Amino acid sequence: MTYCVGLKLDRGLVCMSDTRTNAGVDNISVFRKMFIWETPGERSITLMTAGNLATTQAVVSLLNERAKPAEDRGAPSILEAASMFQVAKLVGATLREVIADQSGIEGPQADSPFSATLILAGQVRGGEPRLFLIYPEGNFVEAADDTPFFQIGETKYGKPILVRAFDPRMGFEEAVKLLMLSFDSTLKANLSVGLPLDLHIYPADGFQTGLVRRIERDDAFFDSLSSGWGEALRKAFGQLPDYDLS
Amino acid sequence: MTYCVGLKLDRGLVCMSDTRTNAGVDNISVFRKMFIWETPGERSITLMTAGNLATTQAVVSLLNERAKPAEDRGAPSILEAASMFQVAKLVGATLREVIADQSGIEGPQADSPFSATLILAGQVRGGEPRLFLIYPEGNFVEAADDTPFFQIGETKYGKPILVRAFDPRMGFEEAVKLLMLSFDSTLKANLSVGLPLDLHIYPADGFQTGLVRRIERDDAFFDSLSSGWGEALRKAFGQLPDYDLS
Repeated sequence: MTYCVGLKLDRGLVCMSDTRTNAGVDNISVFRKMFIWETPGERSITLMTAGNLATTQAVVSLLNERAKPAEDRGAPSILEAASMFQVAKLVGATLREVIADQSGIEGPQADSPFSATLILAGQVRGGEPRLFLIYPEGNFVEAADDTPFFQIGETKYGKPILVRAFDPRMGFEEAVKLLMLSFDSTLKANLSVGLPLDLHIYPADGFQTGLVRRIERDDAFFDSLSSGWGEALRKAFGQLPDYDLS
Repeated sequence: MTYCVGLKLDRGLVCMSDTRTNAGVDNISVFRKMFIWETPGERSITLMTAGNLATTQAVVSLLNERAKPAEDRGAPSILEAASMFQVAKLVGATLREVIADQSGIEGPQADSPFSATLILAGQVRGGEPRLFLIYPEGNFVEAADDTPFFQIGETKYGKPILVRAFDPRMGFEEAVKLLMLSFDSTLKANLSVGLPLDLHIYPADGFQTGLVRRIERDDAFFDSLSSGWGEALRKAFGQLPDYDLS
């Protein structure tokens, strides 16, 4: 499994992804699921992937190949698309192409074992920062004010805290804390989601890669946040009134 | 969908179930998913059901028929089984029988569309209070000290708070509060889980039905707990240190 979240804040985009892939619980590996492209001064694009690793790696390889200023580039490049909407269309088409190719069947393939789902975040000069969720069929939805975040992979355990505490006006420091708590709940419940975590903070109108961090297995802040949250939850729980049985 | 939880506390068993059934989001109904049998002074048995409603209703009907002191009773009755283990075997066999019957195929049917999963809680004189999770195949596992609760249905949203705050030494009042918070997280995230909730508190060695309550849609305590918890979470979240970007 996988867990990735993209937040759309007033001040920019924050992406976090785990790095565990597994083929059964006895065969786990660490693979990057966050990929970043940039044309400094002009655009920054972040892609996070969930689903079949062969599929997502092929998608990223194709996007990379086509982004190179190379000789044989027939296909359009995400570094040249005119807007984030066009980037999303390109990525969606590439995903659908890879799934169709691996399945040997054309057309929508949501139930294919080679399926994958993507979160795309970024900004192209002339537009706002935008956040998309791309489906295996190649179509996509965009985050709007009512739902300013997307999750892919093992989304359920980490959702309640996002729903309760997310506020698009929050700062980056607070947003990272929120994401860490959401990941902590997920890590605690699903073995197939694992540290380290990748983080990309893109401040609006930066038009280049923002702050990139890897939160490692022994990250002191993550550990103290996790235990501090457990304690805070138990304390909050204890302070609420008990049910009256009488 | 459905959400049911059974807790095994030092002082007894606590069961809570929702009541929403759905065939698509445009076709929802209220159905009881908690069923209680007793022989006062001798045994109390609580069954909670998740899965295909036709299957679970058939299971409950069969258990009821066979529990009647009737003329044509060939099958053994859960009111006569010698222990909770034997009750679990009977319920599991009945579940498997119903699924096989509806599927037209004998044998394990976990992937059958007529599938169901059950939580069984109770005590028979001569034994301890026991809690079982019964699978569609008819086999079952019992709650032990390391995992003293079971969930069925939409289990993921409500699990983090259970994992963090459950303590087998807690009182019934606190346990109901914990269950309500777990249900609240689930209700907020999955439309196919809905109020009212059914509650059965069985004090150990009671050997009869304990406290039974229905928590209705407009329950003042549930509402205040839900908003109080949201506030407490946001406060706890605010008090934890933010991530340091520098």
